[in-house]
Amino acid sequence: MFTLGVDIGSTTSKAVILKDGQEIIATSLIAAGTGTDGPDRAMEAVLAAGSLKVEEITSVYATGYGRKLLKNADGEMSELSCHARGVHHLLPEVRTIIDIGGQDAKILSLGADGRLAEFLMNDKCAAGTGRFLDVMAGILQLRIEDLEKQAAISKSTVKISSTCTVFAESEVISQLANGVEIPDLVAGICQSVASRVASLAKRIGVKETVCMSGGVAKNGGVRKAMEQELGLEITYTPMAQLMGALGAALYAYDKSL
Amino acid sequence: MFTLGVDIGSTTSKAVILKDGQEIIATSLIAAGTGTDGPDRAMEAVLAAGSLKVEEITSVYATGYGRKLLKNADGEMSELSCHARGVHHLLPEVRTIIDIGGQDAKILSLGADGRLAEFLMNDKCAAGTGRFLDVMAGILQLRIEDLEKQAAISKSTVKISSTCTVFAESEVISQLANGVEIPDLVAGICQSVASRVASLAKRIGVKETVCMSGGVAKNGGVRKAMEQELGLEITYTPMAQLMGALGAALYAYDKSL
Ligand code: SF4
Repeated sequence: MFTLGVDIGSTTSKAVILKDGQEIIATSLIAAGTGTDGPDRAMEAVLAAGSLKVEEITSVYATGYGRKLLKNADGEMSELSCHARGVHHLLPEVRTIIDIGGQDAKILSLGADGRLAEFLMNDKCAAGTGRFLDVMAGILQLRIEDLEKQAAISKSTVKISSTCTVFAESEVISQLANGVEIPDLVAGICQSVASRVASLAKRIGVKETVCMSGGVAKNGGVRKAMEQELGLEITYTPMAQLMGALGAALYAYDKSL
Repeated sequence: MFTLGVDIGSTTSKAVILKDGQEIIATSLIAAGTGTDGPDRAMEAVLAAGSLKVEEITSVYATGYGRKLLKNADGEMSELSCHARGVHHLLPEVRTIIDIGGQDAKILSLGADGRLAEFLMNDKCAAGTGRFLDVMAGILQLRIEDLEKQAAISKSTVKISSTCTVFAESEVISQLANGVEIPDLVAGICQSVASRVASLAKRIGVKETVCMSGGVAKNGGVRKAMEQELGLEITYTPMAQLMGALGAALYAYDKSL
């Protein structure tokens, strides 16, 4: 039996096809989110990748910000539940998920059964989110994907004392003017994001194993800084972005039994 | 007897000469703060304005961020105490001072004797400070001193839903792109600052009479929005910036008795 999960975000659409609630057959990721043809394209792409026709799919579940807008879905499930479920499927030992997105940061605490037990989010303050990195990359005239490389060659992390994105911006500009090396500034910028999100995580209590997901988790500089902040190792899967869609495919499977 | 108070801020230096602990004889304000010749120039200027020689001053007290660096001061006192004291001298009915500066916002609660009873500050988040206005004026390509005029001609205040300066910036940019009128956006921006600071003030409890001070209080748009937020009238004195220096001159007087 094949089930399909679609995760419709604000800027991306992702899909996963699962065989018998176990094996990932195909995935897709389209850089267009809700309100565009992204969700349809993600579904077409995942079917093509799996060499399957839509008639061969037993059930389709939608998740994500735009999940209510998907026609022909057999059901829908919240992002958080799908995210937790997807991570638990691939990494059953995970108890804490630190998800840093472009505009928010979420901490998910999972029970031993993989269900979401507790949850904290910051979506009010740009500090500790991808937006902080965007602003800083802009000042340093770096691309967001270059931050990791820069942080890796830093010899000494510059401490950024302001948490606030706006005040940190001024700090970084004045450090630059003082001739501070860019890699050291980038390491400080990664540290700032990690430290902000780590304090959110500590409010829930960090149970091991910890896994990072979300767009910002791709940045190894932030992952390393987070390991330092929390004093533990962090698991990362490059499948991170697909966890919501995977969880939706798992829920679709449950409901098809 | 003449006493002199100097308030040495990060970007301005202010001085006041007081006669017999009562009457303001002269004031000065120089747009150069600590670490520059601003404090010396403010003292020279206030002496010149009062047609006094330094030998005629019984006591000089310093306050403000750079107060420890003033040579030849007879004493120093914290900004907060001086600010409360100065306001109480001119406006004895004031019980709450809302001070919005370029990078912070402070709420001072005064006892009936004019002494500082309680105090709350935000210096961590750019929202609800002058910095928020700077960022927004930059986007709208307005000068900071034009915001008041723009807010005054607004027909309908645009609600800015994000508190965060960074997220509000994106909101304002997209409103602009949608053709929203600049005066209505400016009114929304003033409202945002007022609403943020009002929630800080409410944490202390707002006792009347309320007075506003600080650089941002010059902006009538923010004052009007604050009156709406708190549902009461707000006193404002154009002397607001000199309150710290006045308080220092009052403390200098006390110690000379
Ligand atoms: S601290 Fe800075 S980044 Fe955070 S909400 Fe305030 S303005 Fe935004």
